[in-house]
Amino acid sequence: MKLSNLIPATALATAMPLVAFAQDAEVAVAVPTDSVFIFNTLLFLIGGFLVFFMAAGFSMLEAGLVRSKNVTTQLTKNVALFGLASIFYYLIGYNLMYPLGDWAIEGYLSGLFGPGVLEAVGVTAEGADDYGYASTGSDFFFQLMFCAATASIVSGTVAERIKLWPFLIFTIILTAIIYPITASWTWGGGFVGEAGFSDFAGSTIVHSVGGWAALTGAIILGPRLGKYKDGKVTPFPGSNLPLATLGTFILWMGWFGFNGGSQLAMGSVGDVADVSRIFSNTNAAAAGGAVAALLLTQLLYKKVDLTMVLNGALAGLVSITAEPLAPSLGLSTIIGMIGGVLVVVSVPLLDKFKIDDVVGAIPVHLVCGIWGTLAVVLTGTATIGDQLFGIVVIGLATIVASAVVWFILKATVGIRVSEEAEINGLDVSELGMEAYPEFSKG
Amino acid sequence: MKLSNLIPATALATAMPLVAFAQDAEVAVAVPTDSVFIFNTLLFLIGGFLVFFMAAGFSMLEAGLVRSKNVTTQLTKNVALFGLASIFYYLIGYNLMYPLGDWAIEGYLSGLFGPGVLEAVGVTAEGADDYGYASTGSDFFFQLMFCAATASIVSGTVAERIKLWPFLIFTIILTAIIYPITASWTWGGGFVGEAGFSDFAGSTIVHSVGGWAALTGAIILGPRLGKYKDGKVTPFPGSNLPLATLGTFILWMGWFGFNGGSQLAMGSVGDVADVSRIFSNTNAAAAGGAVAALLLTQLLYKKVDLTMVLNGALAGLVSITAEPLAPSLGLSTIIGMIGGVLVVVSVPLLDKFKIDDVVGAIPVHLVCGIWGTLAVVLTGTATIGDQLFGIVVIGLATIVASAVVWFILKATVGIRVSEEAEINGLDVSELGMEAYPEFSKG
Amino acid sequence: MKLSNLIPATALATAMPLVAFAQDAEVAVAVPTDSVFIFNTLLFLIGGFLVFFMAAGFSMLEAGLVRSKNVTTQLTKNVALFGLASIFYYLIGYNLMYPLGDWAIEGYLSGLFGPGVLEAVGVTAEGADDYGYASTGSDFFFQLMFCAATASIVSGTVAERIKLWPFLIFTIILTAIIYPITASWTWGGGFVGEAGFSDFAGSTIVHSVGGWAALTGAIILGPRLGKYKDGKVTPFPGSNLPLATLGTFILWMGWFGFNGGSQLAMGSVGDVADVSRIFSNTNAAAAGGAVAALLLTQLLYKKVDLTMVLNGALAGLVSITAEPLAPSLGLSTIIGMIGGVLVVVSVPLLDKFKIDDVVGAIPVHLVCGIWGTLAVVLTGTATIGDQLFGIVVIGLATIVASAVVWFILKATVGIRVSEEAEINGLDVSELGMEAYPEFSKG
Repeated sequence: MKLSNLIPATALATAMPLVAFAQDAEVAVAVPTDSVFIFNTLLFLIGGFLVFFMAAGFSMLEAGLVRSKNVTTQLTKNVALFGLASIFYYLIGYNLMYPLGDWAIEGYLSGLFGPGVLEAVGVTAEGADDYGYASTGSDFFFQLMFCAATASIVSGTVAERIKLWPFLIFTIILTAIIYPITASWTWGGGFVGEAGFSDFAGSTIVHSVGGWAALTGAIILGPRLGKYKDGKVTPFPGSNLPLATLGTFILWMGWFGFNGGSQLAMGSVGDVADVSRIFSNTNAAAAGGAVAALLLTQLLYKKVDLTMVLNGALAGLVSITAEPLAPSLGLSTIIGMIGGVLVVVSVPLLDKFKIDDVVGAIPVHLVCGIWGTLAVVLTGTATIGDQLFGIVVIGLATIVASAVVWFILKATVGIRVSEEAEINGLDVSELGMEAYPEFSKG
Repeated sequence: MKLSNLIPATALATAMPLVAFAQDAEVAVAVPTDSVFIFNTLLFLIGGFLVFFMAAGFSMLEAGLVRSKNVTTQLTKNVALFGLASIFYYLIGYNLMYPLGDWAIEGYLSGLFGPGVLEAVGVTAEGADDYGYASTGSDFFFQLMFCAATASIVSGTVAERIKLWPFLIFTIILTAIIYPITASWTWGGGFVGEAGFSDFAGSTIVHSVGGWAALTGAIILGPRLGKYKDGKVTPFPGSNLPLATLGTFILWMGWFGFNGGSQLAMGSVGDVADVSRIFSNTNAAAAGGAVAALLLTQLLYKKVDLTMVLNGALAGLVSITAEPLAPSLGLSTIIGMIGGVLVVVSVPLLDKFKIDDVVGAIPVHLVCGIWGTLAVVLTGTATIGDQLFGIVVIGLATIVASAVVWFILKATVGIRVSEEAEINGLDVSELGMEAYPEFSKG
Repeated sequence: MKLSNLIPATALATAMPLVAFAQDAEVAVAVPTDSVFIFNTLLFLIGGFLVFFMAAGFSMLEAGLVRSKNVTTQLTKNVALFGLASIFYYLIGYNLMYPLGDWAIEGYLSGLFGPGVLEAVGVTAEGADDYGYASTGSDFFFQLMFCAATASIVSGTVAERIKLWPFLIFTIILTAIIYPITASWTWGGGFVGEAGFSDFAGSTIVHSVGGWAALTGAIILGPRLGKYKDGKVTPFPGSNLPLATLGTFILWMGWFGFNGGSQLAMGSVGDVADVSRIFSNTNAAAAGGAVAALLLTQLLYKKVDLTMVLNGALAGLVSITAEPLAPSLGLSTIIGMIGGVLVVVSVPLLDKFKIDDVVGAIPVHLVCGIWGTLAVVLTGTATIGDQLFGIVVIGLATIVASAVVWFILKATVGIRVSEEAEINGLDVSELGMEAYPEFSKG
């Protein structure tokens, strides 16, 4: 970077008579309002494609952490769930989430199965005013990615033994109904938000909801064959750690969009400076989580555990998601570090209860989602009571709704593959397509 | 996201006397024009780096779908073709594509082997006016990525049996001459565009051109050894499906830049709202294509086929590329779904004609490129006649030009490796370097 | 792209009375200054997340180029070094780098172990003025990524035989102290910059510093067992070339942020046009480097060497980093090509001196860092004397400081794993976790 250019550039910016205003002129807001609209929309679009890329991150993380005999199935689930989330959040979820919200314009967002959610092509500034302060298309794009992320969380936990189609049906219900309704309680102007619950980018609303749905599924589905046997926990190492690492880095990058975009505005100095704070704090928390897991696994096990370090980084990210703006860099790092510690502690705890979470999504998204939501209290943004209320209400609702769906699926089509299929691997038995057909297995 | 902040932020934005204008003042456009220039340029830069990343997407998709003995060669081709496209589009292609276009400034773009295409360093607003409404450097950057994408399409189809250097020579001619000329007929103010042909981001101009060049090459080159034998089609499964999935997600993300950037402007409320529509519609079409392939392969083959689902997503993306703005989200989903169906149907059809397309690029880019171009008619942007005219003219020109080049290469240096080299794999025989030297082959 | 829309859009932009000013009005700069602030900040944020992603690029490149028995360790180092760099650059480095710089505001940046570097939440335009022309949070975010990149360079060279923790301790000192101090000599208003040294985005300040630290480490550490034996060089092929290719593409994309963001401003027509030049030139140099290595390895070895082509692209990128703005596209291509040639020549040269650089980071980052810094002279931005002064001073300082740290580490905790551990692979011996546990080794 050429900091030597800094002073001239700054000088130029301030010295140039960039614009001349009549001091006593009447107020007109047309153009600046347009600029604000463009900046805000741009934030949603950039944030949106970054969060979109998290779908690739989840896919790579999960493909790297399952055994090679289940990789194709895991990839298929991730692509399919994203496609289905896109369709069903459009058809049902988005309208359900913002039934009376700022984005709901009569005739455009007409509720269930509404004809569409986008402005007219080439909408004028006047027309756009009806939609609020950024384009509806960009908001839809951004919100959709959050909904899809919620579903991605589930797929990792229930991997290696769930049937493809029942999982996808669960995804449809989660993205079309469960997530939109529980999210609307805070972000759609609902009673949880009214009660004072504060969850900036969704430690609870996205991550814990995904985590609760995953936990419910893992319990109802049961552990993988041979995982818990004779009181011992058999580790099933991930088949491809570079993929898992790549997935983590992709998620880390996507999180800048996830948290930064959740500022919902960057059309003023204050907003863009806040987005900058959020980027820096989000990175600090991820770093804190990774380093905490690095140190703790060295101390506890005398050997660093890469998968714990990766999950530590993700834990830091989830932990800062409920309040990435208010903390200082130092506090953000500490919030992330505690998240990293929680993951290292939670993984064996789950095993103790024989809850089999293939990729560690419950420690990362649920445990740290709760921790992050509580950490909001540290910056005084909300009270502990407000936060507990939101955690409990949204958690209970997600558990009950998920359990009902999982049980119905179990009772009807069945959710678990046969023992033989599980032993042979889902790729051969369910899809007839190996992920690495040429590499012989050790 | 903190929707609770929404109302205060909006209120602030509208209530603050952000700028005061004299109602009866004379018109001056200097500053707002600058902002528009910056926004438009920024769109090209963001769109450009997203489309750049598609080079990585194509590389991973193709590396995942070829057999492991040809992976290094496939990677080499992809990196090399991008490098060569960058150089030859600069030296020849760009100036050929816009000979009389808005970007061609006497002295700057002086035609064939022009000295350069960029504005002076630190150009002033007055100087920049000569270039139009965004910086030439950003336009060049963006256009170059489209040209390189066209060449990337070819490499997948002709994989596993083509010689490296003849392929690269073809790439040079494609990116320096064939693509720029056929593209200029619409985007350079040429006769196809004049005739009414409409192709927003290049279903025909980029994808079908790549597809026709690939098809011509596949026919002239012939199928891989053992692919079609005794009336049977032998499947050659891809060696690394996580890579193919990653490549698909990268392409999917890049497509937001591909289609969104093709709005060519985001300096007004209408333009940025249009870009938002395009992002949402592009995603909807990809989702539609993936889900259609998911359902159809389940119905036809009783087993979901991941590579079809991936190609289904890409099919949806190609299908919406000719008109990603005008359709509703619902229509975009349906256009993508039809693309997904077309891919599932086209793959065995190509095999019937013994046309060996290693990665399915012809179904995705050519078949869906045609479909997407025709789908423009659904939104009334162009007539069926206009569209057929463009498809036929550009298709014929590409076929003839490609065939001439392929035949000359075949007659002179030869385009196909020896049987022995093909059986041993191109990596060992052509490059002496294995992609996975330590993993034993099953 | 729909170039047919170009003219209407442009016409609209210029014809619309977007804003009306009183010609004789007094000067007010409030609003445009805010827009400039937002644009500049946005450049840092976009540039920052792109450079962040380079951490993934380095990880994949290195994971692909080491042998499979050392992959987990290499991944762990990359994730851990990024986490530690984030923490220690925050705690010490950033304040050390800009002790009296534009960003240092009394009370906010209070030097060593300063409490934080970010503006207050929701800072007003007046408050933000104190910080200069973009948000401090965005500057911190951007600068941090450069610091982390410096550390990433080292990890590749010393791979496959260094102990994890001593490497990480070196990283801490590099990112907390060595890099910040040497960088401040130019970018922090120090004596090297004062003397006329010009290094736009850090060919010397980032890449050579990383390269010198790597070279010093490689010499003190010694080569891998069996690498140089009986006067022969044994090649140890990379275990996964698709990963290495992916890493290269990610780094290539990240470099648009690295160089483009180093313009440090995009709030004017001139600045955004300059950023566009930089994007185009950066790409041209990468393409030049890749194509030069492609041609040269074909000529020298009769076979194209993919890893050389990848390093050629990176060499081009490093070469253009000291001056990506001033050259024409043609000159940028040539600067990159010379970089590509230098890499192909330097790799065997290092082997001659029995300096074992696992991934070729010294040829890429050090040799081409020097070349790129000298190439600045070609555009007249600085004299050869200015550039040599910077290269020598920064180089010597880095060598001395690095050597001291490496020697202290060697004398105390030791830096090299045991022979047995090296033969068995660091993954099993140091971490007890294989990267590809299921793939049998050939």
